[in-house]
Amino acid sequence: MSEPLAVDHVAIAVFDADVALEHFRDRLGLAVVHDERNDAAGARLVYLDAGPILLQLVAPLRDDAPVAAWLDEHGEGLHHLCFAADDVLGTAAALASPGAGPVTPGSGRGRTSAFVPGAPVHGTRLELTERA
Amino acid sequence: MSEPLAVDHVAIAVFDADVALEHFRDRLGLAVVHDERNDAAGARLVYLDAGPILLQLVAPLRDDAPVAAWLDEHGEGLHHLCFAADDVLGTAAALASPGAGPVTPGSGRGRTSAFVPGAPVHGTRLELTERA
Repeated sequence: MSEPLAVDHVAIAVFDADVALEHFRDRLGLAVVHDERNDAAGARLVYLDAGPILLQLVAPLRDDAPVAAWLDEHGEGLHHLCFAADDVLGTAAALASPGAGPVTPGSGRGRTSAFVPGAPVHGTRLELTERA
Repeated sequence: MSEPLAVDHVAIAVFDADVALEHFRDRLGLAVVHDERNDAAGARLVYLDAGPILLQLVAPLRDDAPVAAWLDEHGEGLHHLCFAADDVLGTAAALASPGAGPVTPGSGRGRTSAFVPGAPVHGTRLELTERA
């Protein structure tokens, strides 16, 4: 890669963000720094301060949200790893396996983001987001 | 919690660390900073520099290693989240659910570590390790 990859956040898929906040905010003591309803993702995204990186809770807002299907298959748990990048779409494309399909731009905290297209390698789904 | 929790590393369970390094080191460009055979865990632990935190590849060295059973059930993927703490064993005990059982000390990079006993809450297994 032309730029070193640095973790921005780790995402945890949950059924209900308010219920999960009782654990991650109230019990673990992690402070909420951002909370949004992301229409494109069909999900509520809650970002928690976890020291050098953020934790992102991803909770479905619609039955047809991708994370709803993921939850049906896997249950709650660690969902993806997001790296900061200067060139989000270019880096996502560069990391995609051959024939994986196009990069679909998304967003979070008002920044462009994109998942690396294709099946997760070593079971680990990767996302890129604009560097802070 | 008496001390704010800060992420130290995110662990990824893999069948074979050398194969996984072709992806995480050679393709993503993450540098290996530590590599050990951890007899107590029955696993090879490879730590990669991922900017503000480390990624830890966990690969079983024995068929009866806990991570071998996890891989059989889940396949490869994100396995746990590790926070730095000053009081590793005390924090692990404080975060355990009632009746979850005792804290079992472990290690990684020569530091004491411990998983929070009991079933993962919201599917997210938590570990503590000594602050750097």
